[in-house]
Amino acid sequence: MLHPCFEVIELVLSGPAEPIPADRTPLTVEFAHDSGRSWQVPGFWDGGDRYLVRFAPELQGAWTWTSRSQEANELTGLSGRFEVGPAVPGEHGPVRVAGTFHFSHADGTPFRPLGGTVYNWLHQDERLYSSTVASLAEAAFNKLRFLVFPQAGGYVEHFPELLPFEHSPDGRWDVTRPVIPFFRRLDESVRLLREHGIQADVLLLNAYDNGRFGLDTLTEDEDAAYLRYVVARLSAYPNVWWSLCNEFDILDRPTDRWTRAGELIAATDPHRHLRSIHNWVRLYDHNQPWVTHASIQLGQATEDFGRGSLFRDAYRKPVVLDEIKYEGDVPLRWGRLSAQQLVHQFWIATVSGCYASHGESFENAGGSLHIVEGGTLQGESPARLAFLRRLLDEVDGPGLDPVDNWWDPAFVAGVPRKLYLQYLGRSAPDAWTFRLPQGQHGDRLEVGDRFEVDVIDTWNMTVTTVPRVFELGEVQRNDAFASDPDPVRLPAGEAIALRVRRVG
Amino acid sequence: MLHPCFEVIELVLSGPAEPIPADRTPLTVEFAHDSGRSWQVPGFWDGGDRYLVRFAPELQGAWTWTSRSQEANELTGLSGRFEVGPAVPGEHGPVRVAGTFHFSHADGTPFRPLGGTVYNWLHQDERLYSSTVASLAEAAFNKLRFLVFPQAGGYVEHFPELLPFEHSPDGRWDVTRPVIPFFRRLDESVRLLREHGIQADVLLLNAYDNGRFGLDTLTEDEDAAYLRYVVARLSAYPNVWWSLCNEFDILDRPTDRWTRAGELIAATDPHRHLRSIHNWVRLYDHNQPWVTHASIQLGQATEDFGRGSLFRDAYRKPVVLDEIKYEGDVPLRWGRLSAQQLVHQFWIATVSGCYASHGESFENAGGSLHIVEGGTLQGESPARLAFLRRLLDEVDGPGLDPVDNWWDPAFVAGVPRKLYLQYLGRSAPDAWTFRLPQGQHGDRLEVGDRFEVDVIDTWNMTVTTVPRVFELGEVQRNDAFASDPDPVRLPAGEAIALRVRRVG
Repeated sequence: MLHPCFEVIELVLSGPAEPIPADRTPLTVEFAHDSGRSWQVPGFWDGGDRYLVRFAPELQGAWTWTSRSQEANELTGLSGRFEVGPAVPGEHGPVRVAGTFHFSHADGTPFRPLGGTVYNWLHQDERLYSSTVASLAEAAFNKLRFLVFPQAGGYVEHFPELLPFEHSPDGRWDVTRPVIPFFRRLDESVRLLREHGIQADVLLLNAYDNGRFGLDTLTEDEDAAYLRYVVARLSAYPNVWWSLCNEFDILDRPTDRWTRAGELIAATDPHRHLRSIHNWVRLYDHNQPWVTHASIQLGQATEDFGRGSLFRDAYRKPVVLDEIKYEGDVPLRWGRLSAQQLVHQFWIATVSGCYASHGESFENAGGSLHIVEGGTLQGESPARLAFLRRLLDEVDGPGLDPVDNWWDPAFVAGVPRKLYLQYLGRSAPDAWTFRLPQGQHGDRLEVGDRFEVDVIDTWNMTVTTVPRVFELGEVQRNDAFASDPDPVRLPAGEAIALRVRRVG
Repeated sequence: MLHPCFEVIELVLSGPAEPIPADRTPLTVEFAHDSGRSWQVPGFWDGGDRYLVRFAPELQGAWTWTSRSQEANELTGLSGRFEVGPAVPGEHGPVRVAGTFHFSHADGTPFRPLGGTVYNWLHQDERLYSSTVASLAEAAFNKLRFLVFPQAGGYVEHFPELLPFEHSPDGRWDVTRPVIPFFRRLDESVRLLREHGIQADVLLLNAYDNGRFGLDTLTEDEDAAYLRYVVARLSAYPNVWWSLCNEFDILDRPTDRWTRAGELIAATDPHRHLRSIHNWVRLYDHNQPWVTHASIQLGQATEDFGRGSLFRDAYRKPVVLDEIKYEGDVPLRWGRLSAQQLVHQFWIATVSGCYASHGESFENAGGSLHIVEGGTLQGESPARLAFLRRLLDEVDGPGLDPVDNWWDPAFVAGVPRKLYLQYLGRSAPDAWTFRLPQGQHGDRLEVGDRFEVDVIDTWNMTVTTVPRVFELGEVQRNDAFASDPDPVRLPAGEAIALRVRRVG
């Protein structure tokens, strides 16, 4: 029987009943494809004498596998073979970087992240845990940031019993003895998100421990043992992204320690998932080779045009603004955006060639927030963001890039000579005269090119095609104009974007 | 007799009459200070049997020197001693990075760059060459970007006879035989700038050859020989900055080649001068360790608030926006700013915690531009920039930093709890109510802190102190307000900045 491409193969092996400490890799399995390519996949202990190896093949055809172990003879020299056929419909494989600044799945299908944020989701009771995912999926979010380790501090009202490690006799955490039910729950959380079409942006280390659990006091070696373990467990799931930490710079650690942790993940993850690290007030150097995309917090970066794209210029990697403040009503400035303002900032991020993440911070009856524990979304932004995601999914190409990032007063993004998106802000004028930027890259506009224009109401979620075709009559060095000088009438005062599509 | 600190010591030595090819280092001299620190200084060929070693000691006290050479016995084993005393008044030594984002001289004196740009200055006739420097100095510019290799292309109307290398029999440039008069002129240009208090931002390689001289077709090894030679010649001058290239990405070269060239300079320059590389449309990775400060071109970066500071966040180095378009009247968009607009952009750069450079592009009678060949400045911006420089020179501290770079709608820069500068743009409102940001770094504002306010007219060059003292009555998490709620009246419509100085 053919195993579907990108599906997890789990080898269940018996090893020593006295478990191999989890700071050592119990076994490694080489998965070899008949093309000659091979993958080295670490196994992990799963309780008792049970050892697992998980692998998701990304090539169709004949495969063999062989195990080796420096820890136990019974885990060495095992082997097998299997055949891989087409992926299950709808499964496109892990998300990777595409077109320098964007993302696509392993099979080439573009992926446009519309992220949600529920930090302490994993640590809620069953009812809340499940309903949160259903609510996010219904709202069209396709990525979720959540913590492996539990959160403490402001707005955290629920603390879990299930924790990731046993204690050693001296009361410290013993990372060599993971608590299997904890990590099975983590497995299950990634699978649950996958079933709902959501990428799991796994926050591996935690800056929000606040002295409650002490999981932020592990040594660098202990962190490394944990990271190897969690990578071995989760890597085969196609929907995994690794984020080293949310607001990493809250923790007082040398930058090099973060770099070594990132490099460790890059070196040990056989499925090459996306890797990032997210800051509080001090940016990490996203030019480091282990970083696949820049995950950035900076309050003002999406508040006006022309900012987010500078991070693209600096890093030449996809930029995901994972925290642009939240829709909500708490007193602190990070959590009191109106829905209109948050949607506005998503549109600015979009025409900056960047991606943004959502979060909701209305204080609930229990004194907590959706970004902490989840629940049902109540804000007005998610519907508008779903509308934006639909428009992004219609882009034919890796994604939208600023067309002339050196200087374009209109900040038009697009795919040169194919598609252009211009956002006019929260209060549009009553008319727009056709004009496109001519950029330095890609296909160049020519006199005679013909375009249709859609007027997009970003808040009321309508797309209205202007019943005219615009033909370029003049193409200058940096700008192109239509022969027809009649302006397009707009609903003045609304949050309007224009989509210009080439039709000839 | 005491040699003054930071002054050039030149050892003139006799070597082989058949010159050592300039792709080899003829000798190296170790200069050892009695503290135990020592400097390895490469010598260079200066014509005939003449070999020079130049060194500018930056420590007072007793020094010895000893030569070694793998090329010639007569250059080996020479030695001497000297004593270094205080610097000549007004000489502060080479400029280096200070306070992460700013500059100071080796003796700690802050340096706030106000740069000018005359690419082809070195290659003009004597009259223009000298008058250009006088005009720049009179206008208060303290840094000049200019090319070692001559320029060709648009607006270049004058081509030099004196070129840097001999030709080999096959017609190629022979970098092993530098033309000494060419490089003596280069020496002299750096000395001339120094006499006028101007830092020489030396553009080492040239993207504007346009097929005329072929100096952009040297191999990487030939570039390296030239770079070693020019570093050996110029490094002792305190006012040297190295810029690998202006608009480096016009040249079709792999990025790694630029990185190796930058690393070569870092490794061979005994005086550790500032090092940068300047882009056209694709930024270099200024996080590379050899880069001391980010020298960036990006047309829109100074056109509005909140942009330039993002480069500080990305690179954590000083940011110099070396090309923010020019005051002038040419048809192309990079050369037709009004003086008002250019001054506006300098102020935005300033409150972004960055520095900017000036250039002038009025087409002159000969069909050229000041940014190409120099001459007398005729624009209206230089006087306003001199005024700005005076205000910057009054800052007590390394420089101005955005106080709350995460999110401050007023984009106030300053030195926390000491000095604040807020720029209100080209058209100020008629009043301003006292408010300061409370940032995440540095000293924190407290209730009872007392401030004076200067109203600065950035165009009319006036500073008017408000005849009241403002005392903080309320300090919130992110903002501080005065007890006195009466707004400060402003000259509405003018380009106004506010300087807030703590007085108690």
